[in-house]
Amino acid sequence: MTQAVANETILTGEAIARRIDDLATLSDDPECLTRLTLRPAHRKAAGRVSQWMREAGLDVRIDGLGTVVGRYASADPGAPTLLIGSHIDTVRDAGRYDGNFGVIAGIAALDEINRTGVKLPFDIEVLAFGDEEGVRFASTLTGSRAAAGVFNPAALDDLDATGQSRREALLSFGVDPDHAEGEARNPARTIGYVELHIEQGPILEANNLPIGIVTAINGGIRAEIEARGESGHAGTQPMNMRRDALTATAELMLAVEAIARAQTHVVATVGRVEALRGATNTIPGHVRMSLDIRSPDDSLRNAAMLDVRSAMARIGAARGVSFKLETNYEMPATPCDLTLMSQLEESIRRLGQTPFYLPSGAGHDAMSFRGILPVAMIFTRCRAGISHNPLEFASPADMEVSTRVLYDFILSLGKQP
Amino acid sequence: MTQAVANETILTGEAIARRIDDLATLSDDPECLTRLTLRPAHRKAAGRVSQWMREAGLDVRIDGLGTVVGRYASADPGAPTLLIGSHIDTVRDAGRYDGNFGVIAGIAALDEINRTGVKLPFDIEVLAFGDEEGVRFASTLTGSRAAAGVFNPAALDDLDATGQSRREALLSFGVDPDHAEGEARNPARTIGYVELHIEQGPILEANNLPIGIVTAINGGIRAEIEARGESGHAGTQPMNMRRDALTATAELMLAVEAIARAQTHVVATVGRVEALRGATNTIPGHVRMSLDIRSPDDSLRNAAMLDVRSAMARIGAARGVSFKLETNYEMPATPCDLTLMSQLEESIRRLGQTPFYLPSGAGHDAMSFRGILPVAMIFTRCRAGISHNPLEFASPADMEVSTRVLYDFILSLGKQP
Repeated sequence: MTQAVANETILTGEAIARRIDDLATLSDDPECLTRLTLRPAHRKAAGRVSQWMREAGLDVRIDGLGTVVGRYASADPGAPTLLIGSHIDTVRDAGRYDGNFGVIAGIAALDEINRTGVKLPFDIEVLAFGDEEGVRFASTLTGSRAAAGVFNPAALDDLDATGQSRREALLSFGVDPDHAEGEARNPARTIGYVELHIEQGPILEANNLPIGIVTAINGGIRAEIEARGESGHAGTQPMNMRRDALTATAELMLAVEAIARAQTHVVATVGRVEALRGATNTIPGHVRMSLDIRSPDDSLRNAAMLDVRSAMARIGAARGVSFKLETNYEMPATPCDLTLMSQLEESIRRLGQTPFYLPSGAGHDAMSFRGILPVAMIFTRCRAGISHNPLEFASPADMEVSTRVLYDFILSLGKQP
Repeated sequence: MTQAVANETILTGEAIARRIDDLATLSDDPECLTRLTLRPAHRKAAGRVSQWMREAGLDVRIDGLGTVVGRYASADPGAPTLLIGSHIDTVRDAGRYDGNFGVIAGIAALDEINRTGVKLPFDIEVLAFGDEEGVRFASTLTGSRAAAGVFNPAALDDLDATGQSRREALLSFGVDPDHAEGEARNPARTIGYVELHIEQGPILEANNLPIGIVTAINGGIRAEIEARGESGHAGTQPMNMRRDALTATAELMLAVEAIARAQTHVVATVGRVEALRGATNTIPGHVRMSLDIRSPDDSLRNAAMLDVRSAMARIGAARGVSFKLETNYEMPATPCDLTLMSQLEESIRRLGQTPFYLPSGAGHDAMSFRGILPVAMIFTRCRAGISHNPLEFASPADMEVSTRVLYDFILSLGKQP
């Protein structure tokens, strides 16, 4: 109790918000929050987080992929470890809550454990990953993949837009990237991975709830679809002699939308479209569009993809346009652990909140542990579903509730029979 | 008959094709045919055309807008004038027939008149305009507009991409641009304007005909349509909470297509579309598309535009997306003269061909004379409707038939009661 009296708690919405604002000052760009992986602002943020971790009583190191690791050891030298993580890199012109909140909340929960002197039968590591957004290099999640033991060393040869490799970036960050295999946690001695994150979507707000339990992180597929018809003169080509690649693509876009709307658990988006060599007075002969389909259920997502392919065949045949689909990226869904989910539900009830389940539409470091560790995620309501945008906002009250749930959840794990 | 024996006729497909190939060597770009208005290749082409005109017995001058004017005077000093024209500027990476064929055909017909010593009761001017394509400057058709007496001197201040004004370009071309009003022909003393041109569309080929009579040059409207919804995360925003500006635009593109398909005499094209700040994993919140609607009948075109506006309102309301339409350009249709059309029909019959009527989907210098002079146009079949492309092709045989029709038509005008 001496400690509890000596230190003021930081497990309050105000204290968390202050740290989020503090971290948001560390940016590559003085005009907006941009903290790309392994750039100087990331290094400064890693330093700030290290300091907060030490203040929370954690032993701190920065691993070979730039992850800040704060360890809280139990009395038992053979105890297993609970991982709590999120990330401190950001997109360009980012919001300040995405990732950063989960790291700050994890530190606040550990600070409270340290402050109150609770004894737990397991060690805890708070992990501040630094490579979640995938803005700078082609590959991403290197920090969490190394911790999961599934890091691919080829990622060290990734080059950023300036031609600098990830290896060089890690060396100038001040870490040694060539021993990533040493970061792999032993699954047999690890309880699970838990991540707290803002929802980045509008569902909790629409349901008037501060907090939600993630059922699964959506799997996703990203593809590029190319339509080839025949370009022509917008004035001289009669409507019935056209093979317009853009109207064919428009029909496909609406088919994609209808396919996703027909399923509760599938979202599909065309985010980019381009008529190549497009001009006002030219019938487009060559069009490209992107396709992004996500679902917490891989079989639903695969069924949606089959529907898209049959729409391509049907529309293409009717219009004399050939479609070609190339998959750029495919990631299976990451189901969350049922036991951890029900423990989270109990913590939420204990704090007087209503348990609510929802999938995660966005990707997270938690995906790296799919099939390796039990995974759980808590979502915090954010305003209007806005994320990756300076307008991103989560209220101090909601952040406090979420962090208290995390704290209670940790304590409840310690009380398991 | 002495002349006829002394000079070989150039009213043959082979001779016309040779001149087209010859003119095609004059290009701004050694790799492809590019002859932008008032650039050095245009000056050389004007010189080559002047030489051919002189060989055909025409008096040649280059007017203040760079138009080569070859005049064939009748015996009667008070005789009216027939204008025959087309253009010798091209787009970038152009075909060699567009415009150039009409000028060469006009010279060939006059050469034949001169060679055979036919006496006509009117003067003839062959006009080689040099500003039809509108690639270099914002305004276009300056040469034909000056001849029609509707030239706007503000066009002299147009700047090209390098910052050079049209006035400067004309001065370095070697002409004096400041007396354009002096180029205006007196409508009371001018019989009409006739232009021979490749179809630049597939209709004659589809009907297996070498030649067609143009009923009207399509009027057209060009607009920019902006859709504003709400951008969002492609993973986290449920389908039923989206205000996707791109799927709304896709629905509008299909509505535009359906509106044009419902009318025989309307074509509508979306040639450009862009999701602004588009990314694979972002629901587009802001989309722009172009719109091009053409018709030989202004009332049909206006009705189509009203249909597009009501589709915008309907789709926008259903999807929570606001559409905004801005008109960039509007040009009424140019109906061809009924008397000249029936005289062309007679010439076509005399040459053993089938008369066939079609609108012109593309714009032409003939539009400048709308409401000022009787206008007629003859279209020549081109391969696969391809134009503005190095693959553009019209056969020597088809070019000869068309030029013979033009020649017969001129002679028939001289025989009018």
